[in-house]
Amino acid sequence: MYRHTKELQWSAKPERPDALYASKLQEVIGGQFGEMTVMMQYMWQGWACRTPGKYKDMILDIGTEEIGHVEMLTTLLARLLEGAPAETQAEAAAANPALAAVLGGQNPQQAIVSGGFAMPTNSMGVPWNAGYIVASGNLLADFRHNVAAEAQGRLQVARLIGMTDDPGVKETLSFALARDTFHQQQWLLGIEQLIEDGHTDGLEDSRKAEEATEQASVFYSFHEGSTAHEGRWAQGATLVGDQEIRFEEGRALQDDVQELPAPDPELFATYD
Amino acid sequence: MYRHTKELQWSAKPERPDALYASKLQEVIGGQFGEMTVMMQYMWQGWACRTPGKYKDMILDIGTEEIGHVEMLTTLLARLLEGAPAETQAEAAAANPALAAVLGGQNPQQAIVSGGFAMPTNSMGVPWNAGYIVASGNLLADFRHNVAAEAQGRLQVARLIGMTDDPGVKETLSFALARDTFHQQQWLLGIEQLIEDGHTDGLEDSRKAEEATEQASVFYSFHEGSTAHEGRWAQGATLVGDQEIRFEEGRALQDDVQELPAPDPELFATYD
Amino acid sequence: MYRHTKELQWSAKPERPDALYASKLQEVIGGQFGEMTVMMQYMWQGWACRTPGKYKDMILDIGTEEIGHVEMLTTLLARLLEGAPAETQAEAAAANPALAAVLGGQNPQQAIVSGGFAMPTNSMGVPWNAGYIVASGNLLADFRHNVAAEAQGRLQVARLIGMTDDPGVKETLSFALARDTFHQQQWLLGIEQLIEDGHTDGLEDSRKAEEATEQASVFYSFHEGSTAHEGRWAQGATLVGDQEIRFEEGRALQDDVQELPAPDPELFATYD
Amino acid sequence: MYRHTKELQWSAKPERPDALYASKLQEVIGGQFGEMTVMMQYMWQGWACRTPGKYKDMILDIGTEEIGHVEMLTTLLARLLEGAPAETQAEAAAANPALAAVLGGQNPQQAIVSGGFAMPTNSMGVPWNAGYIVASGNLLADFRHNVAAEAQGRLQVARLIGMTDDPGVKETLSFALARDTFHQQQWLLGIEQLIEDGHTDGLEDSRKAEEATEQASVFYSFHEGSTAHEGRWAQGATLVGDQEIRFEEGRALQDDVQELPAPDPELFATYD
Amino acid sequence: MYRHTKELQWSAKPERPDALYASKLQEVIGGQFGEMTVMMQYMWQGWACRTPGKYKDMILDIGTEEIGHVEMLTTLLARLLEGAPAETQAEAAAANPALAAVLGGQNPQQAIVSGGFAMPTNSMGVPWNAGYIVASGNLLADFRHNVAAEAQGRLQVARLIGMTDDPGVKETLSFALARDTFHQQQWLLGIEQLIEDGHTDGLEDSRKAEEATEQASVFYSFHEGSTAHEGRWAQGATLVGDQEIRFEEGRALQDDVQELPAPDPELFATYD
Amino acid sequence: MYRHTKELQWSAKPERPDALYASKLQEVIGGQFGEMTVMMQYMWQGWACRTPGKYKDMILDIGTEEIGHVEMLTTLLARLLEGAPAETQAEAAAANPALAAVLGGQNPQQAIVSGGFAMPTNSMGVPWNAGYIVASGNLLADFRHNVAAEAQGRLQVARLIGMTDDPGVKETLSFALARDTFHQQQWLLGIEQLIEDGHTDGLEDSRKAEEATEQASVFYSFHEGSTAHEGRWAQGATLVGDQEIRFEEGRALQDDVQELPAPDPELFATYD
Ligand SMILES: [Ca+2]
Ligand SMILES: [Ca+2]
Ligand SMILES: [Ca+2]
Ligand SMILES: [Ca+2]
Ligand SMILES: [Ca+2]
Ligand SMILES: [Ca+2]
Repeated sequence: MYRHTKELQWSAKPERPDALYASKLQEVIGGQFGEMTVMMQYMWQGWACRTPGKYKDMILDIGTEEIGHVEMLTTLLARLLEGAPAETQAEAAAANPALAAVLGGQNPQQAIVSGGFAMPTNSMGVPWNAGYIVASGNLLADFRHNVAAEAQGRLQVARLIGMTDDPGVKETLSFALARDTFHQQQWLLGIEQLIEDGHTDGLEDSRKAEEATEQASVFYSFHEGSTAHEGRWAQGATLVGDQEIRFEEGRALQDDVQELPAPDPELFATYD
Repeated sequence: MYRHTKELQWSAKPERPDALYASKLQEVIGGQFGEMTVMMQYMWQGWACRTPGKYKDMILDIGTEEIGHVEMLTTLLARLLEGAPAETQAEAAAANPALAAVLGGQNPQQAIVSGGFAMPTNSMGVPWNAGYIVASGNLLADFRHNVAAEAQGRLQVARLIGMTDDPGVKETLSFALARDTFHQQQWLLGIEQLIEDGHTDGLEDSRKAEEATEQASVFYSFHEGSTAHEGRWAQGATLVGDQEIRFEEGRALQDDVQELPAPDPELFATYD
Repeated sequence: MYRHTKELQWSAKPERPDALYASKLQEVIGGQFGEMTVMMQYMWQGWACRTPGKYKDMILDIGTEEIGHVEMLTTLLARLLEGAPAETQAEAAAANPALAAVLGGQNPQQAIVSGGFAMPTNSMGVPWNAGYIVASGNLLADFRHNVAAEAQGRLQVARLIGMTDDPGVKETLSFALARDTFHQQQWLLGIEQLIEDGHTDGLEDSRKAEEATEQASVFYSFHEGSTAHEGRWAQGATLVGDQEIRFEEGRALQDDVQELPAPDPELFATYD
Repeated sequence: MYRHTKELQWSAKPERPDALYASKLQEVIGGQFGEMTVMMQYMWQGWACRTPGKYKDMILDIGTEEIGHVEMLTTLLARLLEGAPAETQAEAAAANPALAAVLGGQNPQQAIVSGGFAMPTNSMGVPWNAGYIVASGNLLADFRHNVAAEAQGRLQVARLIGMTDDPGVKETLSFALARDTFHQQQWLLGIEQLIEDGHTDGLEDSRKAEEATEQASVFYSFHEGSTAHEGRWAQGATLVGDQEIRFEEGRALQDDVQELPAPDPELFATYD
Repeated sequence: MYRHTKELQWSAKPERPDALYASKLQEVIGGQFGEMTVMMQYMWQGWACRTPGKYKDMILDIGTEEIGHVEMLTTLLARLLEGAPAETQAEAAAANPALAAVLGGQNPQQAIVSGGFAMPTNSMGVPWNAGYIVASGNLLADFRHNVAAEAQGRLQVARLIGMTDDPGVKETLSFALARDTFHQQQWLLGIEQLIEDGHTDGLEDSRKAEEATEQASVFYSFHEGSTAHEGRWAQGATLVGDQEIRFEEGRALQDDVQELPAPDPELFATYD
Repeated sequence: MYRHTKELQWSAKPERPDALYASKLQEVIGGQFGEMTVMMQYMWQGWACRTPGKYKDMILDIGTEEIGHVEMLTTLLARLLEGAPAETQAEAAAANPALAAVLGGQNPQQAIVSGGFAMPTNSMGVPWNAGYIVASGNLLADFRHNVAAEAQGRLQVARLIGMTDDPGVKETLSFALARDTFHQQQWLLGIEQLIEDGHTDGLEDSRKAEEATEQASVFYSFHEGSTAHEGRWAQGATLVGDQEIRFEEGRALQDDVQELPAPDPELFATYD
């Protein structure tokens, strides 16, 4: 169960309206790596966590914080829309290029659909969907995805900061930056904890015994003139298991040509 | 530009048909973490890579290998469908529960739409879509996502192996396991290389100077009776910057209640 | 079966082109509550209606009218695009901010994909999809959804009227307003008729006898300082059944903590 | 901001595993009218609500309760999967038709993707998406949509109850039935309150003055032999404004044939 | 405007229920090439057609017929669901493998969501979406797409016929086959008519003068050991313009390596 | 298996940045008929092709070329973004309408998500999805779809050429025009080859013997005042089988009214 309070975790007070920026801000609300994504991803992972205790509690703590981040950024966005230009101001635009940019770039759904509020979509209007998230039950695999979500999300916030000079907006986003810095570490430290607790050695290796061992330490190149052999990924010891990484040209490793069996005649495939 | 050869990278020869298994195998072809995802993700990241040389070449090498993985798994799937039961065998099912399971669980599109071939969808029929992938131009953030994709994808392959006892299928999937083991390491080693080359210290930290520093090292708990403080993520030094992580109860950090400005009357929002 | 005639139900004659407005108008054509939605929703509900007679005929009458509304609004949109500025007019924009707004805000698919016509998408370009509609076979539940669709759709039209001062556009939209006013009432009167005919008492109550009766008349608050108890929804008699509504703090009503059984080891979930 | 507690609002304890039922239960979790929909819809409406006080608090109270409903039903589903049959039991199926039904009908993603947990999808595997919800800022229109969501959701729960005889599952769903009964009333009472508070007369009527008045009280029939005139929707007084509803044959009301202007030659449309 | 009549164009009377078949039949109703697709595609193309007269009338005639095809097939499907087995029949399945196949393979939404009716989705439950259709304003390009839709749709119907032996179902589908045969020809004859009327020579060739002429008659092979040169597409005269088709190895035709300009530092791309 | 080389097939060198054009160019990269579509469609068709030899090789040759087209156009787009205006240039816009158009119309994801690169989406931001493509195993049906894709794609390129006057962009697109001209012919010649090789007579006619023969040569009109009878599609001989096409008014051809059986009471449909 959940409870709600009316205060925001951090302030969300732009100094002036900016409908063009509100259009861009949608990306970190309802985009692939927006706050809706981490909110839903962590809540589902927390509910799916099999072991009571510190892992489950930690995931749910963060997931619960993230609901508040959606609340905070949608509030920021709604306040940015105060006084957004209406279409009938088109005549005013005739003498005002800055207004023209806003008229051309504002998000029509923020007026027509939500009446001056954020939409649960990305910056191009694509509705948020659950294909963005995962809760696999395997904490290593999920924490890897969480680190990625925080890194991508933080990068997007950093890019968005460069698109405004409103100190109030920057104040809110500076908090988002900090939490994403912390959350990146949190999931990386979660992996360290999983290792320390003996759950993994840091690589997903279920059914390790059934792996085609030889192919687990070779870099195959499929590229004329590739310089990929210069990187650490193509030389030195593997991260686990202490094998030597080899660099080889990609080739057929067994004997199988891509041909298919004769088709079922009831399916009317073309066949000689 | 690309070139094609007819040989598969590894063999894909099931010993007997299994239409029920073919239905499940779709997940690692056209699902969120299937081969289409890594194929498209790495090709886009490679094309988007700004610096010629080892990083760009490495990403494109792997992306090119992944096209072949889609080819290999769709071939495996098509061969599993050879002799799949048709609906008119329903009468035969009256005396055969194992056939009944197949009739109930097979993927109808593999017959009706593709005529005995794989579909570019996941195991529930959802078409692959580009919302699964990212190419941000920032290699740290992208490599984090790539590690996650390989870990989740490998976990799914491991689960799928437990659902068959066909040695030919296991042979193909043992190769997929091995490559996912190698590719997890490759992206982790890619991050090590980025650190060694001075591109990052391992955390996404663009606009670090504009971060709300205080909030970058606090674990906020929003949970009654949370034991999250027991984990490494809530104590000890930060991974970078050498601060001490604090564990605190989540609370309003500034003074802002979630209220909105009066609405534009032209939008007909409800307002007192 | 259906038949077509060439006349529109109402005129759709803008006085002048307005490509920026054409971009916004997409919302009420192919959006969540656009004419495609009500057209498809009512046709499916009519076909699905089990009882021949006044209900089925009424639903199909309205559904058939709605096809004509899609026809009317797409025609309006196409006429708004007559003379839409082409990209090569970018130089002209250098001296014309109003043109700049149009160049920035027009819908590129209306040129590139449909050659000067409407798209079957919303105002942000999201293709119409059948996840917007429902035909449940239960007329009360469906009429509730239909009232909602007409109310939301009418609100969007009202907002769009405020974004133009073209008398021809307003003329068309004044008709859409009126029909949405009528159709809201029609579905509400449909519910009255269902009650009069003894099909329902106005609440969906299938399997009423299996309901946890106590929980059907309590408002649970999960909010610090909530003033929700002041509303009619938290006090007075229930709408049916004549119980007294209670206002209580949300709490665990039975004894069950969110913990999960030990996982299947073949699924490689993390578990102590 | 939000807080979490570990207790469920109501118990979620099936008496025995049922993987086939777990597949169907997805509909009321991640489907068009599942708990994710009402959770997200009410939270967004609450955040978007412009007036502090009883309306905003009420919407947020219910939205917060709904997060717990997702938690409760996903827990129920995970417990239904305990001991779900694995594919390698196919041989066992040869002697067990009931097992065959489960093997054919179970949701492969619940094993392959989530490792024995619910998916954020509907019963056919379609990921939840934000195109299901609306928060318009206009409380009448939104409450209409909320009544519909509760009515459709309750109907689906009622249908699902008929598909099980597990007393533990029925116990959980009996609670869902009750809350949906209460929530239907709550939103209807919310509309009564809006009327009482003078916000509306119960019909969405923004820009009423610009409506084509004549068309707001006519039922147009487009159907040979329609008996729709027998219903209340085609006769008697309008619900507001006290006009007489007329029943007429659908026809062209103004003079406009569906023809389009000559195309822009740069768009290469076919034209004489 | 449109009108409706209650008779179906052709009968839709299965001899017995078949819920498993009803699940498969969804493909030709709400799938990529189902009746919803051709219905919507032709209506949009008809409305978008710029020239009044035989083309526009023809497209709208066929589009109007297709609405009736959706009506006919959804009716067929609903009748196939009469007496569909409910979940509680699971015990009966213990002695009946044929029932087990149905229990495993039936479409849960046809019960839970639509109450015994068709869904506006494909056979895997994916909602129909407007990304399947096109109306470009260019009749040659659109007729090409229409031929393809009829060919693919007919092939799917042919495959579905092989999955049933119910004479009533076959009767309905035999009509679908015939109309798809006719409609394939109709669009091909439409192209002949476009040629005869001087609108095209059969190839889309807008801005022909700006084409890189040399590359319009070469088959480039990117394949080791390709035998593609044996086909008509790699030799002989072009279909228009009377050039000789050449077969060449794919290669870089100009001098451009896939490298990108230095990134904007504000975007934090990785760069040396 | 595939291999990669660093050279582009054709040059992609715009003379100057144009972020507004980059936004539009997305359509032919990740749209319904963009290069991702043909790349994926042909690769899947090639892998699915049952007969080794010239058909399979030809399809795979073209599919492999198309990967390079995605590479070429995404490179062109990235180069168009060099020096794209940032939001903070809004002040500059106050004196520059041309800049205002760009600020309003540029694609925010090309900065926020991909850091100055193309997105795998269409011009409105909709992610590419596999619902655009088909690989049916039936070469006639697939080649029909391929002709359509090339015709629609070429038309879109032609329209895009009219929206720029950058010679470098035109140079790249002139190549795209030429290849689309060639590929249209290639698939048409593929159909000729299928006919010559005896695989088809040019119409999809599987289960021809089970077709309702009478209905395979009638044009049904559902339109008052239709002039469709003037076209070749409504008169003359059929393309195969040498029947005479008839023009008739659409009507009920058998005796079946759209009524449904009594519902299952457990589904709570409305019923008298
Ligand atoms: Ca966050
Ligand atoms: Ca792989
Ligand atoms: Ca309407
Ligand atoms: Ca609920
Ligand atoms: Ca048809
Ligand atoms: Ca191409």
